[in-house]
Amino acid sequence: MTSDRYSHLDEDPAFALHRGGKLEVHSSVEITDHEGLALAYTPGVARVCSAIAETPELVDTYTWKSKVVAVVTDGTAVLGLGDIGPEASLPVMEGKSLLFKQFSGLDSVPVALACTDVDQIVETVARMAPSFGGINLEDISAPRCFEVERRLRELLDIPVFHDDQHGTAIVALAAMRNAARVTGRELGDLRAVVSGAGASGLAVSRMLIQAGIGDLAVADSKGLIYAGRDGLNEQKAELAAISNKAGLQGSIETALAGADVFIGLSSGEVPESVVATMAKNAIICAMANPNPEVHPDVARRYAAVVATGRSDFPNQINNVLAFPGVFRGALDVRATDITEAMKLAAANALADLVGDDLSPEYIIPSPFDPRVVPAVAKAVAEQARKDGVVRL
Amino acid sequence: MTSDRYSHLDEDPAFALHRGGKLEVHSSVEITDHEGLALAYTPGVARVCSAIAETPELVDTYTWKSKVVAVVTDGTAVLGLGDIGPEASLPVMEGKSLLFKQFSGLDSVPVALACTDVDQIVETVARMAPSFGGINLEDISAPRCFEVERRLRELLDIPVFHDDQHGTAIVALAAMRNAARVTGRELGDLRAVVSGAGASGLAVSRMLIQAGIGDLAVADSKGLIYAGRDGLNEQKAELAAISNKAGLQGSIETALAGADVFIGLSSGEVPESVVATMAKNAIICAMANPNPEVHPDVARRYAAVVATGRSDFPNQINNVLAFPGVFRGALDVRATDITEAMKLAAANALADLVGDDLSPEYIIPSPFDPRVVPAVAKAVAEQARKDGVVRL
Repeated sequence: MTSDRYSHLDEDPAFALHRGGKLEVHSSVEITDHEGLALAYTPGVARVCSAIAETPELVDTYTWKSKVVAVVTDGTAVLGLGDIGPEASLPVMEGKSLLFKQFSGLDSVPVALACTDVDQIVETVARMAPSFGGINLEDISAPRCFEVERRLRELLDIPVFHDDQHGTAIVALAAMRNAARVTGRELGDLRAVVSGAGASGLAVSRMLIQAGIGDLAVADSKGLIYAGRDGLNEQKAELAAISNKAGLQGSIETALAGADVFIGLSSGEVPESVVATMAKNAIICAMANPNPEVHPDVARRYAAVVATGRSDFPNQINNVLAFPGVFRGALDVRATDITEAMKLAAANALADLVGDDLSPEYIIPSPFDPRVVPAVAKAVAEQARKDGVVRL
Repeated sequence: MTSDRYSHLDEDPAFALHRGGKLEVHSSVEITDHEGLALAYTPGVARVCSAIAETPELVDTYTWKSKVVAVVTDGTAVLGLGDIGPEASLPVMEGKSLLFKQFSGLDSVPVALACTDVDQIVETVARMAPSFGGINLEDISAPRCFEVERRLRELLDIPVFHDDQHGTAIVALAAMRNAARVTGRELGDLRAVVSGAGASGLAVSRMLIQAGIGDLAVADSKGLIYAGRDGLNEQKAELAAISNKAGLQGSIETALAGADVFIGLSSGEVPESVVATMAKNAIICAMANPNPEVHPDVARRYAAVVATGRSDFPNQINNVLAFPGVFRGALDVRATDITEAMKLAAANALADLVGDDLSPEYIIPSPFDPRVVPAVAKAVAEQARKDGVVRL
């Protein structure tokens, strides 16, 4: 086999683990003879098909549709690797499906697409939607991802959720609430600076503003985003209108001076000398993976609370704290959408789990905390009912 | 839940079995802690993605792509129910995926599409193709299914196979070879009449003619198909040019008088009086499900060999004898196509399995015969190599 030329790769345990992929489809029913076959397949299956044809909602009861989430990508923004295309993105998508199963019990299938045009992605996902209970968009680069998600949400009657945007935002919001609390403040007391205006940077910023953060400014590769800056795309212009109250311009350092919060969702490095200009009791949440924009050891010298995206430091901002419970709750009530209120409810449920154990090293639950998914799912389901977006 | 209104349906064991669907996606690797997560997901997975981005063929080794088949339908020709749409077709598609797993070990995912336009189906499948090792088209009505399959075979470098056409044809050919043999003849000695010019009728006819049957005439709902008949679509006109040597016209009875073989792939009934006009040592293969065009009890009075599509009679013509082994063989050698020669090889391998146990009641192996899939897979893989359509 071709792979014999590459068998040395398996010396890396990650490759050995990935051999043959990470997923399998199993039958959930036992078929051992003609009798079983006649129920699971012809002729028994025809009666089930007829019933669904007559009463369409029965598809949720007699097929796996309502419990299977498609993880959909075009391979243009995969981890820190960027645009590597659909085939090369498959290990990440398989991993996502695996996480869905392991953490929420939902089934999930990776669908990596050979198109990057927004119209084509939207069309393709809409056409396959009868087969799925939810769509998790993954690793589709900004700004196309915003339009893809927006249009699919309008078109489909199943939940559509771009995790890079909202998963990150939900967990970041929960962390910020608790970081404020552990330093004797509220979210509304904080002035934040966000580095990065991609999918997660923009979504985190929007959610924090919506949740009532005191003030927030975002910097992209050209510097701070402010109302009136030249050449802002639609997303950034909308954000400029609701952020950066003081209209700060120039480099991120300008905004970081005296800021309460730094959230890193880009790459690169923020020099220690700049970190030193932040306010007392700063909250530093540097999420670039694997190299945070501010190393936790440096951050600790200046901040009251330090968080990263890494599992080998305290306070890991990990999307797996959000997407399993969000989809679990949405699918449990056959929600037709994941509303902004449902996302906020998820963030609050996550934050509340920390409870009285709150400390500077514990502002967010561990991904392996078994209370997380049920609590997030419950909050999301309840909010879905309040929002009137349930079919059940 | 809405389904409580319908809970009485579960008194039918087929419904009870279908509750929640018939499939599950499992992780094929164990993740119990952060360490495992760091190999199956970030950061370990990034190294695997990079390797595939650099050496694309590695996708076959380090993802599940090369072992997962998409079962794709538009819901327009489901069993005997016809056009019931994508959601209502899901139980059949799940069943197909289940059969793939159980019989060939291949993973399989159902994809029911919300479009019926040929261009849209072709586009959609082509765009999702990076995620799959093969495409099994299912229950797409004729004549659109012919163009869909033809165009996808041209576009994709993975196998595309419409089982309603070729699965049926492969098994029917195997059965006909052995039916000829058990009556002391060769395929070339037989004159056959096929009732039905849909996907399976046309494909069975083509394959039998390609395999060297003596003569074959097909009847559609308007009667016998002959060269020059008005209003024949492209597929039927092509078939007319290579079939019905005598140019018989009119109803199917005309052709059945003195015919050696009747193959039923339509519906309706062939009267006993017409069956009685067939030649001595007739072979009757009435596959309408659940009511064969000629009931086996009637057929037995006139025929030397009787076959149906039903599991409660001898000689069941069941597609599950073909598609698992065909895809297994094709995927084992990373075939880029399933050629006509590969299909013929599959049919011959199937026929050969009967060997010396050949009898009028045993012209085709049982679907549960464990020799079937390995034998068919081996023959298909070998032919793929001979045809030069392998990537491995």
